[in-house]
Amino acid sequence: MTIVGLGLMGGSLAMRLKRDGAARRVVGLVRRAETAFAAERLGAVDRAATDPAHALPDADIVIFATPVRVLMAQLQAYAPLFKPGAIVTELGSTKRAITDALSRLPPHVYPIGSHPMCGKETSGLAAAEATLYEGATWVVSPLPRTPDGVIAVVEALARAAGARPLTLAPARHDRLVAAISHVPYLLSAALVLAAESVAEEDETVWRVAASGFRDTSRLAASNVAMMMDILLTNPDAVAEMLGRLRRQLDALGEAIAGGDETRLQTLLQRAADRRRRLYPPAIDD
Amino acid sequence: MTIVGLGLMGGSLAMRLKRDGAARRVVGLVRRAETAFAAERLGAVDRAATDPAHALPDADIVIFATPVRVLMAQLQAYAPLFKPGAIVTELGSTKRAITDALSRLPPHVYPIGSHPMCGKETSGLAAAEATLYEGATWVVSPLPRTPDGVIAVVEALARAAGARPLTLAPARHDRLVAAISHVPYLLSAALVLAAESVAEEDETVWRVAASGFRDTSRLAASNVAMMMDILLTNPDAVAEMLGRLRRQLDALGEAIAGGDETRLQTLLQRAADRRRRLYPPAIDD
Repeated sequence: MTIVGLGLMGGSLAMRLKRDGAARRVVGLVRRAETAFAAERLGAVDRAATDPAHALPDADIVIFATPVRVLMAQLQAYAPLFKPGAIVTELGSTKRAITDALSRLPPHVYPIGSHPMCGKETSGLAAAEATLYEGATWVVSPLPRTPDGVIAVVEALARAAGARPLTLAPARHDRLVAAISHVPYLLSAALVLAAESVAEEDETVWRVAASGFRDTSRLAASNVAMMMDILLTNPDAVAEMLGRLRRQLDALGEAIAGGDETRLQTLLQRAADRRRRLYPPAIDD
Repeated sequence: MTIVGLGLMGGSLAMRLKRDGAARRVVGLVRRAETAFAAERLGAVDRAATDPAHALPDADIVIFATPVRVLMAQLQAYAPLFKPGAIVTELGSTKRAITDALSRLPPHVYPIGSHPMCGKETSGLAAAEATLYEGATWVVSPLPRTPDGVIAVVEALARAAGARPLTLAPARHDRLVAAISHVPYLLSAALVLAAESVAEEDETVWRVAASGFRDTSRLAASNVAMMMDILLTNPDAVAEMLGRLRRQLDALGEAIAGGDETRLQTLLQRAADRRRRLYPPAIDD
């Protein structure tokens, strides 16, 4: 098996599979020699290479764990190197654009999309950990041409990483993930930018920031290049979800400005009830 | 000293002052006999009462830790019971409306506003803890009539709770806190409501929610009655900050829809840089 990219996602997956002996042999393909050296020294992989010709032709499974638009370019560039019969998958955060790229792979390989629903606002191999995928939902997005046996292999990979596989068609995945991942990121960024605009007039704003601001703004610290790839390969769903969000914010803003307590109470209570059902407080809270 | 209301804020303050022996005598004034009993049993107070006439006339300092609009009504109702020379303060989350109420207190008491910048999405005495205020900013908002010696007493109270006092005029407090507390709460609620609107069509959305959604939506689980009081006593600043937020969201949405990578990159990088400066990642992250 070869993992392309040993950042947070690829590095964590390699570490997990190595830790449990779940893969016969884990090879890493990276851009920089330092990363290859670091990955081997950490024991994250059996072998790391910087030359695709030394990492791809022997692999039964190739897993791309690079940023979305990078991996779309790599899929095309590396296509001639894939072994006949190889399973080609990826861990990208959007699925429609990647599925288009996967569908253009030669007929002698088996492409299938996937997306583990986890991450951190830190990135890179230094942030990787074998437990990253534990308990996470791992979306599997087969193409029409993907055989059932290949779906089963990727589901087994997800389980080996400690995750729970969930099959979703690419367009459905992209809509749902826009709602619970891409838009929350944009919200966090917009919140920080709005506070920054206040800070330009009154720096004291940062001194009154407490845990509420800290948590709501956490995603704003995500890797910008990675998030740009995600947003720009999912513009329709992001626009739809931003519209839904704006309507809710407008409804809340109007209820406050108009002093409409009944309406405000109804909206806020609905949000509170749902949030508490999704994440019940711990017994000792 | 008498603390009116032994929920998260009042209960935590009582516990802290008792723990360190920082107050000669801590009396709690609560609405329900069960709370009085529980507070005494927990050792959070020296004595708890449900009758204002048994808790207020002897107090040198009275601290209101009830929801904003409740405490505004209590200030008026309890005014005849305050001891001449008593310091009357409160822990409310907005300052302008409360300052108006404080300014109407009789001339023989010393009113002063305050607001510790901390909280949790759980509420009530059961959630209280002596360490709640540790390291928090504690805003002190004096009235024109507040003597310097009284300001010093409330600053000492803040330090005794483990917090750092910061003097801010009421209107300035309300603007800054709208930006870093009230609007983040509205964002979290709007995010949950927008996801809920998606869930009405496709329940699977909850299964793909990961830590990003969890953290960005945390504030939505806050106590609704408490938050309604806060929002409805700070409508102007909330409206201004919602406007700032909307402009940032629109700018981000337009850059994505238009594929304007340079603009998107500039905005997202500015947010990421600021967030990382505010909350530097731990060394071992």
